[in-house]
This record gives sequence, C-alpha cells and structure tokens, in this order.
Amino acid sequence: MEENGFRPKGFPELKNDTFLRAAWGEETDYTPVWCMRQAGRYLPEFRETRAAQDFFSTCRSPEACCELTLQVRSPQKREGFMPSACPVKQPVPYSLQPLRRFPLDAAIIFSDILVVPQALGMEVTMVPGKGPSFPEPLREERDLERLRDPAVVASELDYVFQAITLTRQRLAGRVPLIGFAGAPWTLMTYMVEGGGSSTMAQAKRWLYQRPQASHQLLRILTDALVPYLVGQVAAGAQALQLFESHAGHLGPQLFTKFALPYICDVAKRVKAGLQKAGLAPVPMIIFAKDGHFALEELAQAGYEVVGLDWTVAPKKARERVGKMVTLQGNLDPCALYASKEEIGRLVQQMLDDFGPQRYIANLGHGLYPDMDPEHVGAFVDAVHKHSRLLHQN
Amino acid sequence: MEENGFRPKGFPELKNDTFLRAAWGEETDYTPVWCMRQAGRYLPEFRETRAAQDFFSTCRSPEACCELTLQVRSPQKREGFMPSACPVKQPVPYSLQPLRRFPLDAAIIFSDILVVPQALGMEVTMVPGKGPSFPEPLREERDLERLRDPAVVASELDYVFQAITLTRQRLAGRVPLIGFAGAPWTLMTYMVEGGGSSTMAQAKRWLYQRPQASHQLLRILTDALVPYLVGQVAAGAQALQLFESHAGHLGPQLFTKFALPYICDVAKRVKAGLQKAGLAPVPMIIFAKDGHFALEELAQAGYEVVGLDWTVAPKKARERVGKMVTLQGNLDPCALYASKEEIGRLVQQMLDDFGPQRYIANLGHGLYPDMDPEHVGAFVDAVHKHSRLLHQN
Repeated sequence: MEENGFRPKGFPELKNDTFLRAAWGEETDYTPVWCMRQAGRYLPEFRETRAAQDFFSTCRSPEACCELTLQVRSPQKREGFMPSACPVKQPVPYSLQPLRRFPLDAAIIFSDILVVPQALGMEVTMVPGKGPSFPEPLREERDLERLRDPAVVASELDYVFQAITLTRQRLAGRVPLIGFAGAPWTLMTYMVEGGGSSTMAQAKRWLYQRPQASHQLLRILTDALVPYLVGQVAAGAQALQLFESHAGHLGPQLFTKFALPYICDVAKRVKAGLQKAGLAPVPMIIFAKDGHFALEELAQAGYEVVGLDWTVAPKKARERVGKMVTLQGNLDPCALYASKEEIGRLVQQMLDDFGPQRYIANLGHGLYPDMDPEHVGAFVDAVHKHSRLLHQN
Repeated sequence: MEENGFRPKGFPELKNDTFLRAAWGEETDYTPVWCMRQAGRYLPEFRETRAAQDFFSTCRSPEACCELTLQVRSPQKREGFMPSACPVKQPVPYSLQPLRRFPLDAAIIFSDILVVPQALGMEVTMVPGKGPSFPEPLREERDLERLRDPAVVASELDYVFQAITLTRQRLAGRVPLIGFAGAPWTLMTYMVEGGGSSTMAQAKRWLYQRPQASHQLLRILTDALVPYLVGQVAAGAQALQLFESHAGHLGPQLFTKFALPYICDVAKRVKAGLQKAGLAPVPMIIFAKDGHFALEELAQAGYEVVGLDWTVAPKKARERVGKMVTLQGNLDPCALYASKEEIGRLVQQMLDDFGPQRYIANLGHGLYPDMDPEHVGAFVDAVHKHSRLLHQN
C-alpha cells in the first residue's frame, strides 16, 4: 500500500467514536446510528446527473466518491449538487452540511460491490432504471479462465483506496468511515446471473451441478477480497462491512457449504492481513440479508457485528446470538414512509427490544430512492433521543 | 353453487387418499408428494402456445385448465401439446400419462391467484416474459371505490368452479384435487404495485401511511376469498391452499397486523361456510413464503397444514410448530438441477428430518421453467421409495 501515497497516517483525530465503541462491544452513552445506502447514490439529484449514466466512472473518481459519501440525504440542498465538482473545497463545506443536519455516527464510502468482479476482468455496466448488467456472465466452467489473478485486484482498485483516504481526510474526524465489499456468494450470483434475478436459479444451478467449479470461483473471490479489504483499512477505513445480500436464496444447507466458509475465511484472513501489515484491527460487520437461518453461525464467524434485516425480531436475535457480538439493524426501510411520530414510536420499540448496549441502530436494508430525507432525519433523531434516555436508566 | 350444475356429487371414488390423510394428521404408509407449479403452466410447451399469450383467457377455459392441471411435466410428451384441444377425451387419456409416470399424490387446479383482483373489477394482463401487469393499480385511497362488491366475486369466478368440477371428474379418483387462492396481503401487493416488485415499497407505503385504507382493502379481499374458496370445495376441490407469497416483505410486526388476522379469518370463515353449506370439511394449507418469523403463529392460524420454504430447517420447524399440525415442503426447487443421485440424497435427508408422519413432501417453492421433467420424476420417486423404508422402521 505504501506506493500509493495514501497511508493512514496524519488523519484528523476522531471526535465521535460511539459507532466504533459499540462495534467493539464497549459501553456507549447513546446508540450510534447510520443507514445503509445513506450515501448520495440513491438521492434523486444523483440519479438525475451524469453519474447515474456512467456509474462506474463515478466509482473510479475519488473526488466524486468522497462527495457522494459525505452528501447524505439533505432535505434542503437538492439544487446545485454536482458530483463532478468538489464543493468540499469551499470554506464552509457544503457536503458536510447534511452530516451536521443528520448527526449520523458513521459514514460509508461510496462505491459498489461489483468493482471486484470488474477488477477480476469482467465487464459490468450500470443500466439506469434496471441495475447492473454483465454482457458476458460466467456460463461455463471454463469461463473461470477469463478471470484475472485475484492478486491484482487490490492494485486495480487503488481508486477506491484513494477515495477512502480523501474522504477520511475531509470527514475531519467527525465520524468513522466504513469500507465494504460484497461477500463471495453474492458476487458469484451477479457474475453468473449477469445481473439481478428473483430466483438466482443460474447461480444456484452452479452450486448443484458444478460444486467444485463453484468453490473455485468462491475461492478466487475470497482471494481477491482479502487484500482489497486490508487495503481499504490501510487507506483509512475504520470499520468494514461484508454484504451477503443474497443469503436468502440459499437454505441452511447451501449456506453452510457455499457461503459461510468464505465469510469466515474473509474475516480470519483480513484480521491476519491487518496484523501482518502492522495495521490496528478494525471491527468487522457481516450483513447476510434474509440469512435468518444462520444467525448463530454468523455470530461465530469472526465478525464483531452481525447486521439484521427487519424480518428478525430483535429479542429473538439477541437470544440466538448470545452476548458476545454487537447487533446492527433493523428497522424496516419502509417504516420511513410513516409519519415522524410513528417513526419515533417504532424506533423506541426497536431500541427497547435491542437494549442499550452492544447495538448499532440502522435500517434492515438500504434506503429507497423515494424516501423523504426529513424522515431519515427523524429516524436518526429518534435513535439518539430515545437511546440517551435508555442509557440513563 | 347449485345453479351452476357442478355440485360435488357423483365424483369417482378416491383411490389414493394419502395426501388427505397426511393433511388431516392421520397415519400414512408412505409420504405423499406433490409440487407447487406442477401444472402445465410452467412447461416450455405451454409457454410456446397461445395460452401464454392470452393467459387469463386460458384461466377462463375449464377445458384448458383441466388439461393443464393433468398435464404435469412429462419427459416424453413435449410434442403435440395443445391446450385448446382436450385429448383427455381419447380412449387412453394422453393427459393422464404424466400422472402415471410421475405418481404425484395430489393435483392442483390450474388457475392464478390474480383472478380474484380481476373479479373485483381490476384489469390484469399477463405480459409474456415479464409477469402480471395492472394498467391501473390502486394509487389512492379513493381507488378502493373502483372495486366491485366482494359478494359478486364467487359468481364472477364460476369458470374456476367449472374447471375444478371437470378436472375432478377427469382425474377419475386417482388423487385428490387441491384448490387455492392468494392470501389478502399478497393480492394487495399486486393490486397496489401493479405487478411484481423486489421491495413491495408501494404496498408497504400503504400499510404505513394508510393503515385504515389498507385494512379496508384487506377486508374486501377476505370477503371475496371466503365464498370463492367455499365455492371451490362445492365444485369439487378436496383441499385448499392459501398462498401468502409475499410474507417475507413484512417483518413480524407488519405481518401480525396486516397479514395474520386475515389468514386466520379466511380459515375460520371458510370452515364455517363449508359447514353452513352442508359440505364436508377439507384440509387447509397455509404457505407463507419467507414467513419464517411467524411459524408459531401460522401453526395456530386454523390450518391443518403449514407449508415451508427451503430456508427453514425441517427439525427446527417441527420444534417450533409443535405436533398438532402437518408440515409441507421444503426442498429447494434448485435442487432439481442436481443429479438424480444427489436429488435422492437430499430427499432422504429431508424425509429423515421431517419424520414419517404429519408430513407432505413438496418443494419449498414452485418449479422453474427450465427444470428437467425427469428430475421432477426422480424427486417424486425418491420421496416414495425412501418414505416407505422410513414408515416400515
């Protein structure tokens, strides 16, 4: 990492470590909160710009990624948003205003999980209104030969490291910066399906018909992810989240065979990689969407935090995972359609159920594009307000 | 029901009641098996015919529905399939050959859950390759005024009753015939979204923003479903399955408020309706896909059978629901991509885990169009073969 000039030194001192403390299982004064997809990507103004037309070019621009990371949903700053400009250079940084308005306790770098398949040599485009598309998905076992050596992936993704370093500098220590990646199985689904799918039948066909080739592909992805995630920390990421977004398509049996071992391997090897590189450990979060059936296993997979979607009741989740892991989640994103009063009530219930410690508030999935930013603010405020009361009792 | 001339009398004697016995919780000699979406609808030859182009016209033709119900996936009879013809009139009924080849223990009437919104006055078309589409979905609360009186739905759907009666006659007592409907919440999602959706955000927005109007809509649907399901039994259906296909979009809280009460109400009122009409009770199956969080509640909802998707481990499901309900499911449909040997192994594991009684084998979801019919046969055979061994022990 040394040659890219973005070593994690000389960063501004962290002023709000509540998220990190909760992630490590330390006591906090209130419940920290952030939102999956809080970055500008899902803002209407983002989708109207050329960034949406050329999504992966935006991902390759550290300036744009920095801006989009800081530009969380602002109710009053819709006009004048230009991802190609970098207004953070202004004396009163425009892009930090939303973070002032919505006092989120963490930022997550703007990027996409599919930069890893891209770095492995696959073409991926983002089709506006449709989603990602691979013109040449993996169809046959021999297609694996098309993939680049996973060892080159981290250097291919230097632009992500640059974005992380720039963003951490510009965050000025307000809150910690989270890096992320897609888990091997979820990346495999995109690479085989060639895009989204309601059944993941093609990717699952691989698991049933070509288990050895599937394991080979999952190993390649794991080998790519480990240096990529270590590199994110080297560049300045202060926590890491692994998204197993398509866990729900696997039942307990397939998950145990084709997802969990790689999830465990990523955690183990990233931790070893950080140590080897002389980097301080960072908390790691595993979010396996619809992976309700594997909660116990995920809590033992080497991650400090287990993310939950909204289909798991908080108390039951805590009973199942025990006390040695922090839980993150899990408000139904659609709850943000409710009135602010109802959001407050739902947040209160959620916080009461999760309890005041070893907990990070979040949604159970990402924000949707049509959500009112003011309601995001109501969510954040409700978490802070009610959790301070909870922590006092 | 009397005026339509399809009273359930004079039907041939049932020769194989294994499915019904298992559904009622009675002892069986082997484990009965059927497949969701086993009817011809998902056959390649079906999709190539005009039936796919004019899906709901097919639903309105009792002859075509009968043919498609009996025409389960045959590996050797792909040619010459004509849904408009009715080859069952031939001396050796062509359409019964597949049932001979694949000794399924139940048939399910070919129809669609969206005939109910249609009967309520909504326009629905089936777009080939895309799915159902409502040109004018419910957008505002006042759109509920567009819906017809639910009391007229059953008479509007007389064509389904005719299809059931015809099919039961032509089944000649081989196996019982299952009727079905979509549950209120699932029907509501289509009516509000106007088609499929990965998030159901519009329908969930109703739940959060218009809870009273949502309950009004769900009550209308319940009021339509009760006489429709009673009518199916009057016409000859020997069991009923309610599909809550979109349960997973609701967390425990929303499910408890907006899905479960109507699921319970349907069961209670259908049972009362059957009694009032002097009809013998039939076993009822509730299948709430991705409803893992509500298994205990579903087992108490007034249904004899609880269907499971493949994300729930059989032993855990049995622990959670207790002994007073039959379980149905739950092989991952994609397991049919595996080799026949592997299918046999997976079936054996599933049967061992569910145990020999109070169990109906099925997939955890419907068959996919690209599945090899021979592998469906391997699934059915494996269930019968292994369960006979299990029942002997």
